[in-house]
Amino acid sequence: MSTEKLSFASDYLEGAHPRILERLMETNMVKSAGYGLDAFSESAREKIRAICHAPEAEIHFLVGGTQANATVIDAMLASYQGVVAADTGHINSHEAGAIELNGHKVLALPNINGKITAKQIADYTESYRADANHDHVVMPGMVYLSQPTEFGTLYSLSELEAISSVCHESGLKLYVDGARLAYALACPENDVTLSELARLVDAFYIGGTKCGALFGEAVVFPGKETVPHFFSIVKQHGALLAKGRIAGIQFDTLFTDGLYFEIGNQAQKAADRIREALTAYGYELSIHSPTNQIFVRFTDAQAAALEQEVDLSFWEKEEGHVIMRIATSWATRMEDVEALIRVLARHRT
Amino acid sequence: MSTEKLSFASDYLEGAHPRILERLMETNMVKSAGYGLDAFSESAREKIRAICHAPEAEIHFLVGGTQANATVIDAMLASYQGVVAADTGHINSHEAGAIELNGHKVLALPNINGKITAKQIADYTESYRADANHDHVVMPGMVYLSQPTEFGTLYSLSELEAISSVCHESGLKLYVDGARLAYALACPENDVTLSELARLVDAFYIGGTKCGALFGEAVVFPGKETVPHFFSIVKQHGALLAKGRIAGIQFDTLFTDGLYFEIGNQAQKAADRIREALTAYGYELSIHSPTNQIFVRFTDAQAAALEQEVDLSFWEKEEGHVIMRIATSWATRMEDVEALIRVLARHRT
Amino acid sequence: MSTEKLSFASDYLEGAHPRILERLMETNMVKSAGYGLDAFSESAREKIRAICHAPEAEIHFLVGGTQANATVIDAMLASYQGVVAADTGHINSHEAGAIELNGHKVLALPNINGKITAKQIADYTESYRADANHDHVVMPGMVYLSQPTEFGTLYSLSELEAISSVCHESGLKLYVDGARLAYALACPENDVTLSELARLVDAFYIGGTKCGALFGEAVVFPGKETVPHFFSIVKQHGALLAKGRIAGIQFDTLFTDGLYFEIGNQAQKAADRIREALTAYGYELSIHSPTNQIFVRFTDAQAAALEQEVDLSFWEKEEGHVIMRIATSWATRMEDVEALIRVLARHRT
Amino acid sequence: MSTEKLSFASDYLEGAHPRILERLMETNMVKSAGYGLDAFSESAREKIRAICHAPEAEIHFLVGGTQANATVIDAMLASYQGVVAADTGHINSHEAGAIELNGHKVLALPNINGKITAKQIADYTESYRADANHDHVVMPGMVYLSQPTEFGTLYSLSELEAISSVCHESGLKLYVDGARLAYALACPENDVTLSELARLVDAFYIGGTKCGALFGEAVVFPGKETVPHFFSIVKQHGALLAKGRIAGIQFDTLFTDGLYFEIGNQAQKAADRIREALTAYGYELSIHSPTNQIFVRFTDAQAAALEQEVDLSFWEKEEGHVIMRIATSWATRMEDVEALIRVLARHRT
Repeated sequence: MSTEKLSFASDYLEGAHPRILERLMETNMVKSAGYGLDAFSESAREKIRAICHAPEAEIHFLVGGTQANATVIDAMLASYQGVVAADTGHINSHEAGAIELNGHKVLALPNINGKITAKQIADYTESYRADANHDHVVMPGMVYLSQPTEFGTLYSLSELEAISSVCHESGLKLYVDGARLAYALACPENDVTLSELARLVDAFYIGGTKCGALFGEAVVFPGKETVPHFFSIVKQHGALLAKGRIAGIQFDTLFTDGLYFEIGNQAQKAADRIREALTAYGYELSIHSPTNQIFVRFTDAQAAALEQEVDLSFWEKEEGHVIMRIATSWATRMEDVEALIRVLARHRT
Repeated sequence: MSTEKLSFASDYLEGAHPRILERLMETNMVKSAGYGLDAFSESAREKIRAICHAPEAEIHFLVGGTQANATVIDAMLASYQGVVAADTGHINSHEAGAIELNGHKVLALPNINGKITAKQIADYTESYRADANHDHVVMPGMVYLSQPTEFGTLYSLSELEAISSVCHESGLKLYVDGARLAYALACPENDVTLSELARLVDAFYIGGTKCGALFGEAVVFPGKETVPHFFSIVKQHGALLAKGRIAGIQFDTLFTDGLYFEIGNQAQKAADRIREALTAYGYELSIHSPTNQIFVRFTDAQAAALEQEVDLSFWEKEEGHVIMRIATSWATRMEDVEALIRVLARHRT
Repeated sequence: MSTEKLSFASDYLEGAHPRILERLMETNMVKSAGYGLDAFSESAREKIRAICHAPEAEIHFLVGGTQANATVIDAMLASYQGVVAADTGHINSHEAGAIELNGHKVLALPNINGKITAKQIADYTESYRADANHDHVVMPGMVYLSQPTEFGTLYSLSELEAISSVCHESGLKLYVDGARLAYALACPENDVTLSELARLVDAFYIGGTKCGALFGEAVVFPGKETVPHFFSIVKQHGALLAKGRIAGIQFDTLFTDGLYFEIGNQAQKAADRIREALTAYGYELSIHSPTNQIFVRFTDAQAAALEQEVDLSFWEKEEGHVIMRIATSWATRMEDVEALIRVLARHRT
Repeated sequence: MSTEKLSFASDYLEGAHPRILERLMETNMVKSAGYGLDAFSESAREKIRAICHAPEAEIHFLVGGTQANATVIDAMLASYQGVVAADTGHINSHEAGAIELNGHKVLALPNINGKITAKQIADYTESYRADANHDHVVMPGMVYLSQPTEFGTLYSLSELEAISSVCHESGLKLYVDGARLAYALACPENDVTLSELARLVDAFYIGGTKCGALFGEAVVFPGKETVPHFFSIVKQHGALLAKGRIAGIQFDTLFTDGLYFEIGNQAQKAADRIREALTAYGYELSIHSPTNQIFVRFTDAQAAALEQEVDLSFWEKEEGHVIMRIATSWATRMEDVEALIRVLARHRT
């Protein structure tokens, strides 16, 4: 593997954190009930409830992010309601119409660095209500945020509190997509803890797939009876894992001895080191993204040269330039970080 | 674990076959593309194409059975078409309305030992066409079978050929749910090979979850371009695994050195031994089921007594009796089979 | 028109009752608000509320029966719920999958003369609840009846009371399709009045299309706030009439001076006269149907001969026989009834 | 009625053009088949085919605009496809999510005077294709235009030809919403005839509801076999009229002796007279709209004063101003136009 090309293309290039695989091995021959009714899943739930300070939280382990989004959003909205999101939100841009397949419109607001504001939401709902014909218009029923966002940016606690207030005053549900939540939690700039999330939102998911698991997203409803019969809804959406234990064991491991946070920290350390070098070498970051995703504006020539030595992720084409994404993860080795930095040093302008 | 209660409750009580976990360990730190575009998945596809003698087959790895059924059926039907199935078919009885969520009616025919016949299908489509008002009626667009069925019974090659003929003459697609296909393939009574399946049907899936994998079902379209843009359809249904490799590695392992068949054989051997004992002790089988599921009619007293010593699966209540299912799997230990037989010996009437 | 072939093929062969057309003429140039917010619609609602003794009823005028069924059922069910109906129910047999298009399974029970019983419903819901895996099964959420049924038969008040009790004890909604309600209300055997209906069910519709209107069905929710935002749901289902007044004026006319009942009476009188002659001539009725639809078992030869002289509606083929439907309506002329009877006299065996 | 308040609030304030009501009266007692299979509907279809120079066109009469849009779009798109429209398009803004209820995303492009351009569409589809991850993105499958637009503006023939070329080169269907088509056809600025429409698009509908009918929209597929089984799709969407003749008779009347064009001309004449006066009195039109809808920017004071004397339609609030819509129709009396003009004269600044 020493000759493998360097890759910072994404944060889900490898299998799973070794402790997860070890735990799957250890427990492999234990017999258990299916569909998440096993002791491993219940143990994982208890750990998540504890760390969220949400003793009554209802928690379900789903397989993937698009699936979690589509299932939760469909479960929480009335048929005639839509979900407010940043135009760059994953549900609006990269889920192949999964939200619409379930009958709901994504009500896209222009993003600011991947985020939307409490004021945008308040203005939108106010304008909906003021419209004399609003019965002919899709009713906003929920706000969807991602933390960190698709651009690696973060909602601050005060921003989230403001959004939560607007939502609850206006009767909108608030839902947070935490596909990369470990990387938000590990970020020094972050001030939104799991228990703040649980306090402020109606539903969120703790991402496993992009944070060290083979797969899996833990959907958390902090309140009681948020969605009656969510189990059947999950089944109906084809999202119920027969061997639910496989997800349960993974989340139980992620929330044992702080592994989920350790995973975030490793990625953060690698990303910080890369950002430091990028700045030192005069590269231009296209957005202030403090988490494990870094967006760099390269010249076309630089991008072409880099491509020979390292896999990055293409983001956007601009006149004469190209924006590429560098992603780190729990699996990023510091020796590879240093190798990347040497490549970057060689190609600086 | 020696004190663990005996259980023959289902064929997905444990994790995965050890060779799958080993392979996940070995490959864990290899970097690969996501969404099934990795080399492991491609290797698995090649092996499946070879064993099916279907060199142009398009193969997608989905996560679970309900998901595979809902996605494939929705992808292959026009909006105004329904899917013909036995009333006991999984899609009609145990998928919480997943087929209907996607807009399609299940056109249920009365089962005979879990199966439907070519004649039933021909009669149904003929009667649909003869109906002067058939434009107001759901058009049959597909036939859904399961092999083995939910009752552990098998379609013979001649039955499947007859159904295939009827379908293709009538313009219906034919789709086979192979959630437990390993157990059909291993059964001495079976004469439908993978390559016969590939020859006779438009789509089928090779079950992983109930046949030794952590999860995963390999959807096979034997023909070319059966469903344009199936990848996007999978994504839209929330069924696309980000780390597609995890499914790919599992199926690559299942189809290396005949593991999938070995898994079936182990379950078959255990089931045959149990059936032999049941017959010897005078127990009544409620259906002739030659695969890894055995349905036994116990008296209420027997059932109550057995329940203290072994976990079986409740199937149906009858006056004074109860039908229980005994299931074996790749993970069934012969020592547990003998222990079960001792229990059965003790409680015979 | 005197040479027009006799036709008893259906009860919607003509335009509308003349008083409806007159009223449309009279009001034609009055300007009014759209979408049912006009004074005509409000007047119609008041009349319906009064006759139903349901002063708080919410009433919406939709265009057709399939549309009304699909919209009301979708509005009242959770996504994971299905609707219990007779297998012969219109929603199960002749709506081209409209209920499934909206995501809901029709849970079909075997009909007895087009009807289902309180006991069948109780048994079904009990068996659903007793099933240990019922979370994987479509939950019954509503019962759908039609009054009169597709076979022209009637639920008696005591039958409806029993069904209503079972539904409300089990948390199921009760909904009645009244496509031909005028013909039930006019039938001497009927003891279910509009106010009994309103007392016993959660929603029903008063049929216009088959009872003298150009089109239109009045959906009645007797209780308060049964379905929040039903207006938007109607719009989203494409069922909101821009010129809502056209439906409103029709129902206002139907419920002025007892026209709706007069319409039923005319059809009843014609049907009774035909039934009397059929019996006198020794024809066999295939079902006891006391309303405006009569189902007669003719020999093939009789059917062929009759076809030359009168249009009836084909119902079902039996060995050597054919069942045909004779339907009367508000528009049936007694002279045509006598002409039909003369034809029947000539072809008796 | 002489004391009725002046109203120019919309173009569907009255019943129907008198010739339609007369024809309904004349034909009322003729018996006919249901569901559009009657001779009146066939006659209307022949007239529309002739005027469109589309002898093989398939034509269906639906009830309303939202219903026609939702049904046609769902019928013509694959599940994973979305429909490109101006952000101001009716399907994006005022159909309560009907398109999404059927599973499709509206891909909104920024409008220019209510319209989108061939270049915008070409850029969008090109960018979709260039996206390496486009399999995760909703595929554009159709372009939706309205003629005239929601702002009363018109696509010119050359604009429509350019859009048609882009669509057909890119494999997109082209669909035109003609809710107010009569008012486009009557406009001196218009150069898109019915036969040009039929030549350039895959489907369009000729609006009845807003152009003199009680209700009804004629969906035209100029080509052969554009959508197999569209009849069943209409039924499944709850959009099939039992007494299809009522729509058929209306369209037959609209296309007899040029009534549809006469209706457009009357509205155009009234609108032109009002525009002339507005300009003369120095009012500011907020958009150049040459058809039967006029958008005027009033000061708040003007708007408040006008409201006492005439009903207009509120469009949009701006700082210190309000934009109101004045709509004319086939039913607009020239004496009311003159009365409106006198009111406008009095309140000019």
